[in-house]
Amino acid sequence: MATTEHASTIDLEAVAELAAQLRVDSIRSSTSAGSGHPTSSMSAADLLAVLVTRHLHYDWDEPRLAVNDHLIFSKGHASPLLYSVFKAVGVVCEDELLNGYRRFGQRLEGHPTPILPWVDVATGSLGQGLPDGVGVALAGKYLDRLPYRVWVLCGDSELAEGSIWEAFDKASYYGLSNLIVMADINRLGQRGQTDVGWDLEKYQRRMEGFGARVLTVDGHDVAAIDQAMTDAAEGAAEQPTVILAKTIKGKGFSEVENKDGWHGKPFPPEMADRAIAELGGVRNLVLRGPVPSPAEPGPVPGKPSTLAPEPAKPSTAAPEYAVGEKVATRKAYGDALVALGARDDRVVVLDGEVSNSTFADEFTAAFPERYFEMFIAEQQLVAAATGLAVRGYLPFASTFAAFFTRAYDFIRMGAISGVDLRLAGSHAGVEIGADGPSQMALEDLAMMRAVHGSTVLYPSDGTSTAALVDVMANTPGISYLRTTRGSYPGRYPAGEKFPVGGSKLPRSSAADQVTLIGAGVTLHEALQAADILQGEGIAARVIDLYSIKPIDTETLTAAAEATGGRIVVAEDHHPEGGLGSAVADALLAAGQQNVQLTHLAVREMPGSGTGEELLAWAGIDADHIAAAARKLVGG
Amino acid sequence: MATTEHASTIDLEAVAELAAQLRVDSIRSSTSAGSGHPTSSMSAADLLAVLVTRHLHYDWDEPRLAVNDHLIFSKGHASPLLYSVFKAVGVVCEDELLNGYRRFGQRLEGHPTPILPWVDVATGSLGQGLPDGVGVALAGKYLDRLPYRVWVLCGDSELAEGSIWEAFDKASYYGLSNLIVMADINRLGQRGQTDVGWDLEKYQRRMEGFGARVLTVDGHDVAAIDQAMTDAAEGAAEQPTVILAKTIKGKGFSEVENKDGWHGKPFPPEMADRAIAELGGVRNLVLRGPVPSPAEPGPVPGKPSTLAPEPAKPSTAAPEYAVGEKVATRKAYGDALVALGARDDRVVVLDGEVSNSTFADEFTAAFPERYFEMFIAEQQLVAAATGLAVRGYLPFASTFAAFFTRAYDFIRMGAISGVDLRLAGSHAGVEIGADGPSQMALEDLAMMRAVHGSTVLYPSDGTSTAALVDVMANTPGISYLRTTRGSYPGRYPAGEKFPVGGSKLPRSSAADQVTLIGAGVTLHEALQAADILQGEGIAARVIDLYSIKPIDTETLTAAAEATGGRIVVAEDHHPEGGLGSAVADALLAAGQQNVQLTHLAVREMPGSGTGEELLAWAGIDADHIAAAARKLVGG
Repeated sequence: MATTEHASTIDLEAVAELAAQLRVDSIRSSTSAGSGHPTSSMSAADLLAVLVTRHLHYDWDEPRLAVNDHLIFSKGHASPLLYSVFKAVGVVCEDELLNGYRRFGQRLEGHPTPILPWVDVATGSLGQGLPDGVGVALAGKYLDRLPYRVWVLCGDSELAEGSIWEAFDKASYYGLSNLIVMADINRLGQRGQTDVGWDLEKYQRRMEGFGARVLTVDGHDVAAIDQAMTDAAEGAAEQPTVILAKTIKGKGFSEVENKDGWHGKPFPPEMADRAIAELGGVRNLVLRGPVPSPAEPGPVPGKPSTLAPEPAKPSTAAPEYAVGEKVATRKAYGDALVALGARDDRVVVLDGEVSNSTFADEFTAAFPERYFEMFIAEQQLVAAATGLAVRGYLPFASTFAAFFTRAYDFIRMGAISGVDLRLAGSHAGVEIGADGPSQMALEDLAMMRAVHGSTVLYPSDGTSTAALVDVMANTPGISYLRTTRGSYPGRYPAGEKFPVGGSKLPRSSAADQVTLIGAGVTLHEALQAADILQGEGIAARVIDLYSIKPIDTETLTAAAEATGGRIVVAEDHHPEGGLGSAVADALLAAGQQNVQLTHLAVREMPGSGTGEELLAWAGIDADHIAAAARKLVGG
Repeated sequence: MATTEHASTIDLEAVAELAAQLRVDSIRSSTSAGSGHPTSSMSAADLLAVLVTRHLHYDWDEPRLAVNDHLIFSKGHASPLLYSVFKAVGVVCEDELLNGYRRFGQRLEGHPTPILPWVDVATGSLGQGLPDGVGVALAGKYLDRLPYRVWVLCGDSELAEGSIWEAFDKASYYGLSNLIVMADINRLGQRGQTDVGWDLEKYQRRMEGFGARVLTVDGHDVAAIDQAMTDAAEGAAEQPTVILAKTIKGKGFSEVENKDGWHGKPFPPEMADRAIAELGGVRNLVLRGPVPSPAEPGPVPGKPSTLAPEPAKPSTAAPEYAVGEKVATRKAYGDALVALGARDDRVVVLDGEVSNSTFADEFTAAFPERYFEMFIAEQQLVAAATGLAVRGYLPFASTFAAFFTRAYDFIRMGAISGVDLRLAGSHAGVEIGADGPSQMALEDLAMMRAVHGSTVLYPSDGTSTAALVDVMANTPGISYLRTTRGSYPGRYPAGEKFPVGGSKLPRSSAADQVTLIGAGVTLHEALQAADILQGEGIAARVIDLYSIKPIDTETLTAAAEATGGRIVVAEDHHPEGGLGSAVADALLAAGQQNVQLTHLAVREMPGSGTGEELLAWAGIDADHIAAAARKLVGG
């Protein structure tokens, strides 16, 4: 290995040498793996060579340093380039690059993930790295108040994703001059030319229209790139900067330069040899750029539409609701957020322009500097939460539960990023009534249960909601709280505990003949059904399955044993993947025999109506639960 | 009721009267329902009054007429305005408007759905009507080749959705001069000002940057609107037009005009009376605008990047694969699409810039005029398919299965729209190997099963894939085909039938002691496991569960009965909501007792590796299936 050169000594000639090395190493790593994207790496090699030697302020030995700049590869398929950079700064060795890339059990995965300490977020689903970067930049400007910059490498194909424009919109709205996008416009997508091709002026109009400053450069002119990065890093204007770089896919190897048909294909070994020869051979430069200076947090900048000065700090005491008091769980969510926010400065809240419906607006009023309005852009909502989580904050993001379907890819990728996200979806199910099916979440439990490592919670009253909001603050991974539109009577006294993976038995006796399982609104229906059944001499056990994932298998199997296997599950959700499936999965996984499960769910397409009418229509109200139980007991 | 006036006689004075009527009726209907969005309707009333009287070419008595213009309320919450228009043209009576709106069992739902014959697509999840309209306009220009126009009413809050910009991008790329967007810029969202407010120049820069022609008007000046619509309808340029209208939320009622806090709130009755009085009272005008002229389809316009002239029509015969022949199911998907396309001119194909991975490119080569490249924009991919389905085409949309998560809200809304969409997701599960988790669909089965009325198919070989593609052509609702990256040996002879809701028993005998259930890649693993077990003297039944929804309960229960309830399910998917859940749900719903189900699924976060390594790591390969079966039989 060569000796390490230091920032001040790295001239543009050395940078050009490094760019050649990055290309060579991108070729070597992908050819050795037999898969990967060398040509997409080669187009951006000059951008990265200039960045890491002269502009990225980063202490490679302390990747968690708060003052470090951030580097996000939104075009995650250019992982050979990123890993070649890691070799060039001396944190990954040649052996790992050549024998670890894309191999089983290794950390240099096909697309970058935060298994690597220098990677903030998993990328590879295009159009996500930039929205994530907006979240990091929000943290930098408004919360950390540190001068670090967020550098995001975007490909041109991903500029067709709407999420990119949600990101630009928010970046300019929030004046994120600390966000610098390197747009690698190499013209070619996976199967041919992108829809905009090399029409850089078109991109420029779009980006400027969305509020960015655009610096157009020849993406292979290291001096021009260097100047643009110097200009970008100054970040004078209250707006993000784009370094719009015209590049050539496969740059440096004449056989593939600007040629279609070479996306995502490693070069065969002989071809790789020719490419490496054309690029001047293998190099082993180790070069590090500037490290950040220690910095004190700056003043809090004013946000657009800043609310009145922060009011007196609200009480840190959790809200309390009396048993029998009617409260909507969405309202309790807002109440609990305020108390949690008062206790923990790391709590931040985001919403998709419906905070007066989700009751996130209570937090907005109490802590305006820790609230980020994402407007109607649910992808950016989840991505911003992801970026804030990267910086150690505890984000709670809310919208209508139905509209989290808009962000499912971002939630899925959040799990791969290993971030802790807290999502709260209001207005679940047909219970919402008049607004009709477009606003009714009926797939959200299935969607959220299927996320790796997720926690899915569905409280029925104010006390349980408030307790679960506190629990979410300390829950790793993606946690999801499903709240209800209407107000229902409190069932639990203040102070009752609701651990993840638990359940409650608001009604049980040794004489129980049937088990009724509900959560959220159907818990109230199940309890009414138990009253009806009691009037008929049938004793029913009721389980409040507030924790759908993980699930309380022990209570479920005990109830099955105690009630002759007779179980009715009622849920305000489609029949697939929700409460009923969770119960079925758990009972069978536990080896429970002789189960007779009647599963009540929303099986037809709802329309408008009152909540009561629709619960009855769907067959998930007290009368239907009682009838199902009666049939099981009588049968 | 007043008499019907005809198009030629409707002057702008009458139009203004109609606008007042639309406002009054929007107020009356929402006040009567006790919910709804009067103020969001009032801002757009002038736009709609001018449109329906003088520019929309629509035969209200024949809503399915091919030459009719299309009207899509992308801001679906302005349903009071839409329904008031329906009253004004005489297709909905006053009684229905006042007593049916948002009521149980009625068709005037809170947000429009195609239960109404004049509604193309369900809206209410913002940012979807315009992308859907792009699909309708694609059909009009390239397939129907009819001169109808697609008029889309957008709100300003929804312009923050990235999907809107995906739509503009595609509308300009495809030169959709038949698409006219009416952008109702009333400044106020649900909880305050939108992020752009009344900065119409900012919107104009964005829209022009994305290739639209923008005509800015005062949205309450009927003469200016009329002129803009005349200009728009000429559609001279090969680009979409936006009528960018500065409007006032609540326009016409001074108490609420341009005031925050009135989103989605009906006026209390006394307030409604004051509003109606200020607007000049109740009117009952019935006015109809122009009807379309009969038209012959025009010539086929050239698409951007049009491929070589259409080749000789390919064979209509379904592809055939020999038993034992290795073929990837994604390849069979492409093969089968070509044959299906040759047999049925209504078949159209769309892809998200990965057609050389999904093998949709085979169709592109054969039928370039029926292929629509959507680039990396999965929301627009599904929305365009929706719009094409509205016009009677049979769309097949493909991308990596993982990336359909990006479009989940559109898929969900497609089900509410009642359209028949055929989605094909390739590269399912850890089987894909080196690319890593961002590219691995591990939630898609859960996501697709939870969609109302969906059909979920997962073939294991070429023959079953080809058969299921044909089945999908005639399957109503949302159907989903999950395909696999790698090539596996054919298991079924050509000509074998694969009905929806069926399954196959590639291996069974009266002596079976255990049932192994797989689909896709795990079917091959299950069959290998059965071989291993046979060597040990254990007879195993194997079920190919190619139809996951609907599911073949009869075969499942028969197998459970025959094998002492011993069942192993293996799936390349997270444990929640996929194959195992489908089996558990079905067995319990059927009342099957004594089930001992071992469920093998992907329970940890995968990395890179070979497909074989990852199947083994996840515990879903032949060895793990055999071990699980052995344990059940021995236990």
